[in-house]
Amino acid sequence: MHYPAPISRLIDSFMKLPGIGPKTAARLAFHVLDMKEEDVMNFAKALVDVKRELTYCSVCGHITDTDTCYICQDKTRDRSIICVVEESKDVIAMEKMREYKGLYHVLQGAISPMEGIGPEDINIPSLLTRLKDEEVQELILATNPNIEGESTAMYISRLIKPIGIKTTRLAHGLPVGGDLEYADEVTLSKAISGRTEI
Amino acid sequence: MHYPAPISRLIDSFMKLPGIGPKTAARLAFHVLDMKEEDVMNFAKALVDVKRELTYCSVCGHITDTDTCYICQDKTRDRSIICVVEESKDVIAMEKMREYKGLYHVLQGAISPMEGIGPEDINIPSLLTRLKDEEVQELILATNPNIEGESTAMYISRLIKPIGIKTTRLAHGLPVGGDLEYADEVTLSKAISGRTEI
Repeated sequence: MHYPAPISRLIDSFMKLPGIGPKTAARLAFHVLDMKEEDVMNFAKALVDVKRELTYCSVCGHITDTDTCYICQDKTRDRSIICVVEESKDVIAMEKMREYKGLYHVLQGAISPMEGIGPEDINIPSLLTRLKDEEVQELILATNPNIEGESTAMYISRLIKPIGIKTTRLAHGLPVGGDLEYADEVTLSKAISGRTEI
Repeated sequence: MHYPAPISRLIDSFMKLPGIGPKTAARLAFHVLDMKEEDVMNFAKALVDVKRELTYCSVCGHITDTDTCYICQDKTRDRSIICVVEESKDVIAMEKMREYKGLYHVLQGAISPMEGIGPEDINIPSLLTRLKDEEVQELILATNPNIEGESTAMYISRLIKPIGIKTTRLAHGLPVGGDLEYADEVTLSKAISGRTEI
C-alpha cells in the first residue's frame, strides 16, 4: 500500500477525468489535502449539483438548471432564426461573441455511421417538431467543420429543403490572426472560393 | 451569463487546482456532466473524505487515516534509522523503491528565510523529541537538493551532531538513464567528486 485509502480513492477519481494521468492525479489529490476545508466542501457540492441540478432544456437541448433554458426563455431574442450546434459548449462559444440574437438547437452529437450514431440518436426529431410549431425562417447549421459535422449539416439541409426554410452554413476561411503560410490546402481553397470584394 | 450557475461553480472549483486554467476547467466540468452519476458521487465523497479522514501521524507527520501511520505501526521496520523528508509525497516516492526499511520523519516544509519559515515552523522540534525517546542510530537527511532543502539538512545535522547520532545525505550524481550531455555543471561536479571504484 503506497497511499492511505482516502487519498488513493481521490487519485482514482481524478484519473477518470480526461487528460489526467496518475502523476497529475496524485499532485491534485495532495493539493486538495492542503486546501481550505470550505473550498473542498464547495468543490464536492459543485460536483454533486452539476449532476443533480443540470438537465437539458426541453425545447433546445442546451444544458440548464431550469425547465427551459435562459436563452429559450429570453423574450428579446429573434425567434425566426435557429442556430443548430453539436454541443452545449458550442452555444457558449457563440454566446461569447455577443452578436447572435437568435435561438439555438443543440443536437448533442453528430451523425456518425462509424460509431453507429444515426439521425434518430441525436436531437434531429425534436428539431423537426420545433420547425413545425414555431415560425422559423432561417436555420444556421453550425455543426463542426469535420466529416461528421458536414454530413449532419448536409442531412438536415436535405430534410428541411421541402419545408421551404432557408438553411445556411458558417463561412470557411482563414482564422483571424492566423498565418497564410500555416493554413492547410482545403481551408485555403475555401478561403479563395469564398473571397469577398473590399 | 455564459454558463448555468451549477456548472460555473464547478469551473471555479476546478480552477483552484494547480495547473488548471479556465479552458481546462470548463472541459473538465463538461466532462463531469457526461459522467455516470455513481462516479461523480464517489468523486465528491472522495474529496470530502480526504479532507475529513486524513490527518498527520502523531509520531512522524506522514499523512494517515489512523492515529499513527501504517509505517510507524509496522513492527517489522528498522527503528534505528529515520529518513527525514520534506513532504508526504517524498515518503511515497521512497516507499515505491521497496528497499528502505527504516522509519520516516516528515518535516512538512523546509527552512526558508525568504518565506519566513524558520526551524520552529516545520516538524523539527518533534524530530528532536523522537531522537531523545527512541534508539535512533542514523538520520538520513533526504530533503530536496535545492537551497531550502540543503540549508534544512545543514541545520538539522548541526543540531544533531552533539547528540552523537550519525547523519547522512542522499548521494548526488547523474540520474540513471540520463544523458551526460544534458547534465548541469553542479551535478556533473558532484558526480565526479563522488565517483566510485568498479
